[in-house]
Amino acid sequence: MLRDDALKGKTIIVTGGGTGLGKSVSRYLLQLGANVTICSRRQAVIDATASELMEETGGVVLAVPCDVRNTAEIENVMAKTIEKFGRIDGLLNNSAGNFISPTERLSYKAFDTIVDIVLRGTYYFTLAVGKYWIENKIPGTVLNISTTYATTGSGYVVPSAVAKGGALIMMKSLAAEWGKYGIRLNAIAPGPFPTKGAWDRLFPEPLASMMDPTSRIPLHRVGEHGELANLAAFLLSDYSGYITGESITIDGGEVLMAGEFSHLEKVTSEQWDMIEQTIKQANRASKKE
Amino acid sequence: MLRDDALKGKTIIVTGGGTGLGKSVSRYLLQLGANVTICSRRQAVIDATASELMEETGGVVLAVPCDVRNTAEIENVMAKTIEKFGRIDGLLNNSAGNFISPTERLSYKAFDTIVDIVLRGTYYFTLAVGKYWIENKIPGTVLNISTTYATTGSGYVVPSAVAKGGALIMMKSLAAEWGKYGIRLNAIAPGPFPTKGAWDRLFPEPLASMMDPTSRIPLHRVGEHGELANLAAFLLSDYSGYITGESITIDGGEVLMAGEFSHLEKVTSEQWDMIEQTIKQANRASKKE
Amino acid sequence: MLRDDALKGKTIIVTGGGTGLGKSVSRYLLQLGANVTICSRRQAVIDATASELMEETGGVVLAVPCDVRNTAEIENVMAKTIEKFGRIDGLLNNSAGNFISPTERLSYKAFDTIVDIVLRGTYYFTLAVGKYWIENKIPGTVLNISTTYATTGSGYVVPSAVAKGGALIMMKSLAAEWGKYGIRLNAIAPGPFPTKGAWDRLFPEPLASMMDPTSRIPLHRVGEHGELANLAAFLLSDYSGYITGESITIDGGEVLMAGEFSHLEKVTSEQWDMIEQTIKQANRASKKE
Amino acid sequence: MLRDDALKGKTIIVTGGGTGLGKSVSRYLLQLGANVTICSRRQAVIDATASELMEETGGVVLAVPCDVRNTAEIENVMAKTIEKFGRIDGLLNNSAGNFISPTERLSYKAFDTIVDIVLRGTYYFTLAVGKYWIENKIPGTVLNISTTYATTGSGYVVPSAVAKGGALIMMKSLAAEWGKYGIRLNAIAPGPFPTKGAWDRLFPEPLASMMDPTSRIPLHRVGEHGELANLAAFLLSDYSGYITGESITIDGGEVLMAGEFSHLEKVTSEQWDMIEQTIKQANRASKKE
Repeated sequence: MLRDDALKGKTIIVTGGGTGLGKSVSRYLLQLGANVTICSRRQAVIDATASELMEETGGVVLAVPCDVRNTAEIENVMAKTIEKFGRIDGLLNNSAGNFISPTERLSYKAFDTIVDIVLRGTYYFTLAVGKYWIENKIPGTVLNISTTYATTGSGYVVPSAVAKGGALIMMKSLAAEWGKYGIRLNAIAPGPFPTKGAWDRLFPEPLASMMDPTSRIPLHRVGEHGELANLAAFLLSDYSGYITGESITIDGGEVLMAGEFSHLEKVTSEQWDMIEQTIKQANRASKKE
Repeated sequence: MLRDDALKGKTIIVTGGGTGLGKSVSRYLLQLGANVTICSRRQAVIDATASELMEETGGVVLAVPCDVRNTAEIENVMAKTIEKFGRIDGLLNNSAGNFISPTERLSYKAFDTIVDIVLRGTYYFTLAVGKYWIENKIPGTVLNISTTYATTGSGYVVPSAVAKGGALIMMKSLAAEWGKYGIRLNAIAPGPFPTKGAWDRLFPEPLASMMDPTSRIPLHRVGEHGELANLAAFLLSDYSGYITGESITIDGGEVLMAGEFSHLEKVTSEQWDMIEQTIKQANRASKKE
Repeated sequence: MLRDDALKGKTIIVTGGGTGLGKSVSRYLLQLGANVTICSRRQAVIDATASELMEETGGVVLAVPCDVRNTAEIENVMAKTIEKFGRIDGLLNNSAGNFISPTERLSYKAFDTIVDIVLRGTYYFTLAVGKYWIENKIPGTVLNISTTYATTGSGYVVPSAVAKGGALIMMKSLAAEWGKYGIRLNAIAPGPFPTKGAWDRLFPEPLASMMDPTSRIPLHRVGEHGELANLAAFLLSDYSGYITGESITIDGGEVLMAGEFSHLEKVTSEQWDMIEQTIKQANRASKKE
Repeated sequence: MLRDDALKGKTIIVTGGGTGLGKSVSRYLLQLGANVTICSRRQAVIDATASELMEETGGVVLAVPCDVRNTAEIENVMAKTIEKFGRIDGLLNNSAGNFISPTERLSYKAFDTIVDIVLRGTYYFTLAVGKYWIENKIPGTVLNISTTYATTGSGYVVPSAVAKGGALIMMKSLAAEWGKYGIRLNAIAPGPFPTKGAWDRLFPEPLASMMDPTSRIPLHRVGEHGELANLAAFLLSDYSGYITGESITIDGGEVLMAGEFSHLEKVTSEQWDMIEQTIKQANRASKKE
């Protein structure tokens, strides 16, 4: 959607960029002229992705292994990126982990694992890059992949909700504080953007249907990776230069189903006729009383 | 819940106080020592309610007919209240109207009717009472009966959502502006608190079940009028003196079901075992790749 | 920012499109290939704008006078647009009015004037266009120009806050309800985007400084019309096809200054040194106790 | 405010109950008939508080040392409480820590320290107590002491904001998930409730004035501990039985000052006269054009 040179000369680090949405966004950033460093714990995965994306787009990708819970590894990713590309302009906090489970089945340790990857990793990386930008007077930009339940909360994914909730507030807080340095921070809260092998296809009925979000979404479809990549590229580009501290939901309206009566979508046209009649009669009766 | 004299000597106007929740709250305000003026369009209804509540509680109730869309009638309610009780300390904006309907079935006029009662009536009454308080240096308090969809929005009740949404922001705006006069404004956002003759009992299946909110509510029950009355009395009393501009949700958690995975409550314990197994296998397979 | 043909063949109605932000956005929509109908109460103003924009962009602009409080005039705008361009694809609800004033200085009528233009006009136009889209199976899109105080509330602009608050909830509600028809609704909540003749330049000191938002904004500058036009065009285009029911804030972080400690931006580096020392001492003292 | 026996027979654990707000709330819980366990890292402090509160209220207080980052110590507090009082009915997550500092001055470790106390401590304790309640079919209730910047974010207290933001979403998520067990979770978001020795008194001018929140608060005063204790007791009592997943702000309207024009409180009456005149003239001039 953006003009071809929208990110020309920018260097962006994408955590968890080896697979899924991170990979899709990286591809689009490259197509718009950016240099991209992808990092994740699995060297083989990011190496393969780097090769694939470079061939596909003609751009340059650096792959550096990194566990985002380890600050030395984070600093290594930054050093390698600066060595290769000269500087860092953007950070896409995209690494994640999740357990879908009743919370009372989780150990303290399971809870910690998710919070450490998703929250600690995010604030470590953001703190490291922010200090670099402030010291070097670079007006960098951070984009977090968040989720709608970072605001609403959600059962059955509680460690992830806690971590994403904390990361969202970090984003807003630092946008308020670091605006004076020209640093912007934003987030995207995606609804369902399934990737190949999404686990809802793994289940037999009736679980598969329960896991299928389509019927709960006003637009009656899941998102496409390109749609999220469009929004991400916009928020990482200078075109969004007056947007900071904002989390943008892209979910086909899924979160709106919170509305107390929105589930009445299931009522048919004939049933609405009947409802109208019934209410009119009740009102007439009430007035006679 | 509050001490018996929590509202001793306070005079509170309750719009739409003749029936339903407004009547229930009025009863409790009287039990806590308040004088209450109830008003609505139907003289016979409020007269009957006034008699019933006075007999029941030993308190004093004034019934004044009023269409809240008419500023002269509003000013008459205020004048009669001051004449009878000496002054006004609180205003409970409770008058409402609603159409449950697909929006495209509504006329401009139908839309106007709801917005005029719910929103215009609310700002007319609040403006009138606010000017009186400022002029007379009375630190009054306003309480709006709002709804959770004043924040989330909701399909199929759109005129009401628009009006309640506007009234909510009026409340916050005036709380910011009139705090310096000691005037407080707050709101309650109730979930389902059915009254006798609630229209969900009027419908045949499967409509009755669709209309029944119980299964969508984390606490698995609807609210009791006394629960809402407790909260309303607290917010109208001096005990809540440092709370202003706040809307408090009392809905058994209904609005939380917005959480993307909260509907997984329907998954059984055995199904969770299966999910755990499937995810573990998928993770193992993914690591082998 | 968008590719040159991003809105090729789309027809968009812009209310209040004769001046200010509405005019700036209309210009950009034309540059991206859209047909634009602008409407406002003043025929001479929109005629002049139409001529100017057509000459400047080479696009086609239709100017139809319209008071958005009048449903016949709204329907006339729609009829003229369909006659000229064949159909309607988008609606930008941009008409507005505002009084900056202590609320207790306002009459009921002043309050009504703003609410009628901003809220009633918005729901009239949206209802009319929505019915047309549903009947003709057109997956149209609505964009509201909202404001950050539609969510936070604000003193001293209360009628506008009420109206914008109601319009925001209409947008969310209809996004939930009309998603099934492929209709999307979104909003932009701009911070300060001054136009030529902005009234803050009219005032002597110290009022001018009070009215100047720059120092309250993390990015330390006001917005440029092109920045808002970028976002508006994106939300009216198919590139944002999975975003609905969302209000996007573009305010340089202004609203973030709500953060309880964000005003500490005014503390100097030396003062921070002193604060650090003082807190350390206090902590040591507290531990000794 | 509540009736004398509102918490009769309930046992509530208060983390960080030795000082400040935690101590004030504990006192009120005791006055309402509750048994209270207070815990914090400093044995001497909680022992002294326990003695003082028992003497003052006639209630029973158990003091157990606990670092909330240590799950064994948490489980010890629970075991001791059950041993002493027979069961646990409520948990008040009140332990906190904070650094007021530009974020770029903080080390990774400083960030971790706050997040571990405030967030990890909260989810550890809540997970432990929740499992106990589910296993023993006790409809317990959790109350978090949150903050307004858990929602808005705030510069200069970023680790605390991150942690409180995460804890808020935990509260909402578990309220959605554990409602079926009758477990409720809520939060209070207090504005400024200074305690003896509050650090804003430690500073010389102009820092002292910058730190003083009074002028930023619509009600022009800070909160009193009793006001917060009232709200906390209500939310821990059965009187709030239909409220869950809710965070209630009690801040004198402080957070409302986010409203874009709310700072115009500083404009005098004479200046408003001048503004009215200026705007009228500008409008007349604009119409003549």
